[in-house]
Amino acid sequence: MTDRIGFIGLGLMGRPMARRLLAAGYQLTVHNRSWRPVEELASLGARPASSPKEVARESDVVFLMLPDSGDVEQVVLGREGLVEGLRSGSIVIDCSTVSPETEVAIAGRLKEMGVHYLDAPVTGSTPAAESGTLTIMVGGDREAFERVVPVLRHLGSRIEYMGASGSGQLTKLCNQIAVAGNLLAAAEAVLFAERMGLDPSRVLEVIGGGAASSWQLVNLGPKMVGRDYRPGFKAAHLKKDLRIVMEVAESRSLPLPLTSLAWQMVRALVSMGYADQGTQSIIEVLRSLAGSHKPGTT
Amino acid sequence: MTDRIGFIGLGLMGRPMARRLLAAGYQLTVHNRSWRPVEELASLGARPASSPKEVARESDVVFLMLPDSGDVEQVVLGREGLVEGLRSGSIVIDCSTVSPETEVAIAGRLKEMGVHYLDAPVTGSTPAAESGTLTIMVGGDREAFERVVPVLRHLGSRIEYMGASGSGQLTKLCNQIAVAGNLLAAAEAVLFAERMGLDPSRVLEVIGGGAASSWQLVNLGPKMVGRDYRPGFKAAHLKKDLRIVMEVAESRSLPLPLTSLAWQMVRALVSMGYADQGTQSIIEVLRSLAGSHKPGTT
Repeated sequence: MTDRIGFIGLGLMGRPMARRLLAAGYQLTVHNRSWRPVEELASLGARPASSPKEVARESDVVFLMLPDSGDVEQVVLGREGLVEGLRSGSIVIDCSTVSPETEVAIAGRLKEMGVHYLDAPVTGSTPAAESGTLTIMVGGDREAFERVVPVLRHLGSRIEYMGASGSGQLTKLCNQIAVAGNLLAAAEAVLFAERMGLDPSRVLEVIGGGAASSWQLVNLGPKMVGRDYRPGFKAAHLKKDLRIVMEVAESRSLPLPLTSLAWQMVRALVSMGYADQGTQSIIEVLRSLAGSHKPGTT
Repeated sequence: MTDRIGFIGLGLMGRPMARRLLAAGYQLTVHNRSWRPVEELASLGARPASSPKEVARESDVVFLMLPDSGDVEQVVLGREGLVEGLRSGSIVIDCSTVSPETEVAIAGRLKEMGVHYLDAPVTGSTPAAESGTLTIMVGGDREAFERVVPVLRHLGSRIEYMGASGSGQLTKLCNQIAVAGNLLAAAEAVLFAERMGLDPSRVLEVIGGGAASSWQLVNLGPKMVGRDYRPGFKAAHLKKDLRIVMEVAESRSLPLPLTSLAWQMVRALVSMGYADQGTQSIIEVLRSLAGSHKPGTT
C-alpha cells in the first residue's frame, strides 16, 4: 500500500513536492515546524498533523525534506517522532541532503521495526520541484525502492537507484563537489575578465560553448557579472553540503583539495553575510580578496 | 591584399590549419623548426621557406602557431626573423596561446614598421582545426582584424574580436581558468564516487545533466573512470597556459585561489610523467594523494 502519504518539511522544496502528491490524488498528511505552510497545504485538502508520530500513524509512506542531519534524526527518532507511530511494512523516504552516515544509522534502526528507510536526495531547484522534474538519487533496499517508484514519478523525471543505504546521499555529494568546483571556476574566470579590462559578458558568451562550459558558468556567470544574487540555491545550503562532503572525506581519509578550498570560500561567503543569497555571490569573496584595484592599475 | 599567406609552426594544430588555407586557394608559404611537416605541406602545393624572414618576404599575412612566448619572440624578432622580411601594411596573426604581455610588446614593436600584429589564440582541438570550426579570439587593431576576417573564416566558425592587443590572449586565459577548475572538479567527483564504492560511470550519467554538468565532466569524466589518458589536450600544454595565467595575475596582484591550486596539481601531474597524456589524467594526482585505500577501508 502506498496510497496514504505523509510529508514532513514544507520549505521551498517540500511545499511544491507535497502539492504535487496532493494533486496526484494521494491522501496526504503533513507536518512542519512552523504552522503556516501546514495551513496552506490543509487548504488544498491535506490533513494537518501536530507531530511526526501522528504523520506516521496516518501514512504508509512518509517523505522528509529537512534542513540538516540533526533535523532528520529528531523527526525520525526524537520525542513524538516517526518511530513512535510507524508500523511494520511502511516506508520512509528522506529527500533531504544530509550525512550518508546518518542515513545508514537511521535505516538500521528502522529495519529492526520492519520499516524501510530510503535516502533519496534530489537535484533541481524549486521550479523543478513545482514541475515534477527533479532528479532523485535513491539508496536503500531495492525492493522498497521499486514499490515507491510510482509515487516518485510524480516528483521527478529521473528516478535513479544508486545502491545500498547512503548511496543516494553519496551520489548527491558527488554532484555538490562538481557544483562547487565549477562555481568557483566560473567566478575566477569572471573576476579575471573584469580585472583585465575585458567585457566579462562577452567573454562568457565566447567561452561558454566549448571546453570551458559548465551549467554554473552559463547560468550563474552572467549573474556574477550583473551582481544579481537572488537565490536559486542559497550559499548557506552549499556550505552545509560541503561540510558533509568534507566530513565523509575525513572519515575515509580522502583528500579533496579543490572541494576543501571551495568549502572555505563558501564559509567566508556566509561569514560576509551572504548566507541567504545565491551561490553565485561567491564572486564577492574573490572580489574582496582582490581588493579594490581597477583594470589597468596594479 | 591577403592572398599570399605564410604559416609558421606546423604542429598538431598548425598543420591542419595550414592545409585548410591551402585548400581554400591561397598561395601558402610555410616554415617549421623540423622539416618533415614542411615537406608534407609542400607535397600539397605549399611553398617551403627556410626561415621566418623568407616567409615574411613572400606573404601579406603571416600566421604563427607556436608552443610558447619565447618561440613567438624568436620567430618574430630573432635572427632571420619575420621583422627582417615584413613590409609595411602586412599583418601577422599569432594563433599560439602565449603571454598577453609578449603580444603587446611585439605588437608595439611591429607597429613602428607599419605592420599590424593580432593575437588570435584558438579553442577547439585538432578535429576542430581540421573541420575549420575553431573559436578564434582576437586582440589588436580593429581595422586589421576586419581585413583578415575572410581568411579566418576558413579556420574558425566563431571569430570574435575582443579588444586591444592582448585581449585575445586574455580571453583565452579566462577559458583556461574555467577549463582547469572544471577539470579538477570533475576529477574530485569521480574520485569521491570511486572511493565511496559507487559506480562512478552511473554517477556521471546521473549528475551530468544538471547543475553539476560541465564539458570536462561529461567528456573527460568517463575517460578518468576508464583510465583512458589518450590526449585531446596535453597536460604539458595546460601547465604552460596556467603558468601564463598566474604570471598575469601576479603582475596585477590578483589572487586566484582555485587556479593556483589547479596549476600546482597540473605541475604535479607533469612531474609524475603525464606531460604528453591528456589532461583527464589529473585524476592520477588525486589517486596518488588518496593512497591505495580501497572502498570500505579507512
